[in-house]
Amino acid sequence: MVQLYRELRGKDVGAVRAAIRANRYGSHTAGLGAGYLQTNLAILPEAFALDFMRFCQRNPKPCPLVGVSDTGNPALFTLGRDIDIRTDVPSYNVYRDGRLAERRSDIRDIWSNDMVAFALGCSFTFERALQEAGIPVWHIDNDTTVPMFRSNIDTVPAGPFGGKMVVSMRSIDAGAVDTVVAVSRRFPLAHGGPVHIGDPAAIGISEIGRPDWGDPAPVAEGQVPVFWACGVTPQVAIEAAGVPLCITHTPGHMLITDVPEDVEIPILTASNR
Amino acid sequence: MVQLYRELRGKDVGAVRAAIRANRYGSHTAGLGAGYLQTNLAILPEAFALDFMRFCQRNPKPCPLVGVSDTGNPALFTLGRDIDIRTDVPSYNVYRDGRLAERRSDIRDIWSNDMVAFALGCSFTFERALQEAGIPVWHIDNDTTVPMFRSNIDTVPAGPFGGKMVVSMRSIDAGAVDTVVAVSRRFPLAHGGPVHIGDPAAIGISEIGRPDWGDPAPVAEGQVPVFWACGVTPQVAIEAAGVPLCITHTPGHMLITDVPEDVEIPILTASNR
Repeated sequence: MVQLYRELRGKDVGAVRAAIRANRYGSHTAGLGAGYLQTNLAILPEAFALDFMRFCQRNPKPCPLVGVSDTGNPALFTLGRDIDIRTDVPSYNVYRDGRLAERRSDIRDIWSNDMVAFALGCSFTFERALQEAGIPVWHIDNDTTVPMFRSNIDTVPAGPFGGKMVVSMRSIDAGAVDTVVAVSRRFPLAHGGPVHIGDPAAIGISEIGRPDWGDPAPVAEGQVPVFWACGVTPQVAIEAAGVPLCITHTPGHMLITDVPEDVEIPILTASNR
Repeated sequence: MVQLYRELRGKDVGAVRAAIRANRYGSHTAGLGAGYLQTNLAILPEAFALDFMRFCQRNPKPCPLVGVSDTGNPALFTLGRDIDIRTDVPSYNVYRDGRLAERRSDIRDIWSNDMVAFALGCSFTFERALQEAGIPVWHIDNDTTVPMFRSNIDTVPAGPFGGKMVVSMRSIDAGAVDTVVAVSRRFPLAHGGPVHIGDPAAIGISEIGRPDWGDPAPVAEGQVPVFWACGVTPQVAIEAAGVPLCITHTPGHMLITDVPEDVEIPILTASNR
């Protein structure tokens, strides 16, 4: 898989997605399809779709909605020329009644005509922009997963969806915080600006060295912990809502789209297709 | 009404909305509640809400969604501390089976438990920003309505909603076009950057002096016609879809919210309420 990952790094988006679709590649997507939007995924029965969409609209930082399928149609046509959402993600998590039931490489045989697929922006986009602005991102440089925490910040509820916001933390040199805020605010569809800067206790985090998800990352002398809304938030909300069947991507195993990261709006139309 | 308008110009948002709610003021809202987001309004039966929300997600320039009510709840709580969507807009248009049936100052007696209210960003926000950047806006300076045209640009359909995009036109000095693009792109929830610059015929407009809605505006020597996606687009899509009952604001008679125009996200939360 490592050898194939190295090969795919140099390939275009179509070739990467083809390898994933053929189940030749089933690992994480960081660094693949460079320059193109990658997204989180949540698939829900239509009965929950309107409330979930309202939840996303009300909580655009943790849940930046970039694409929604027609009910029962696995083609996410606004995000790609040929995306089949049943096969084009390297690994899927299947939740039944709010619990992780299994992990799969495709969902063709459990997809049904009442399902709606939601694609949500992810942090890869702004992390790349931070690096291009000369800001080191510790977890990337050290090949670990960003530390994520359950905060005490309330989401704005919609129907059965609600609960606390999950946040991710990146340590930033004190002198670079203003730059980091400005850069990340330019990406509203990738969580936007930070939701909190500084004292972890102020948002209910008691031990910065013990994340609820991901790996610990140091806050060095002269650095400030900066917190962003995290895409795990909708996943936790879906679990708490007890939706009978929900399918998500496996964390880190994203959907790679045909939408360039720097477009004004993440919609393929006749003019940018 | 003109005297009351002058009085209300100096008042805060709460006082303006109270006058509207009490049916003391029923005219246009341009220039009122300065600094606060104003929105277009569409109220639909829940059976159409998911498709309409998908239509907005897929067409964010003509339909920038800034708020959605819970089904049957007239409080648009993410946009204001006390908004009652049945009374807080100066004038409503009621469409039955796709045709304008009546105009009213409140909709308390036709609101029902299956209705969903959608608030959409409007051009007031970026027009103010253009003026602050020193760009004259002819229709404002001449107290007319911006010219609007049916273009040949397809929207991305969702369920029964689709059709061509309606665009508004502003004449811009050739040397200021780049500034205008940059300024308006900063407001993705107020139609964002232009959808077309220059030759009207390229987007299916044969007579620039004869708009389909609004008043004609000149394109002077040295100026370029610049076109933005327009909030009349969803109204036309709703009419074409033949929704049995739909309620909108009367053009120019907007909802005035408690959300400052310059916030990063248009959601009132504990931290910005």
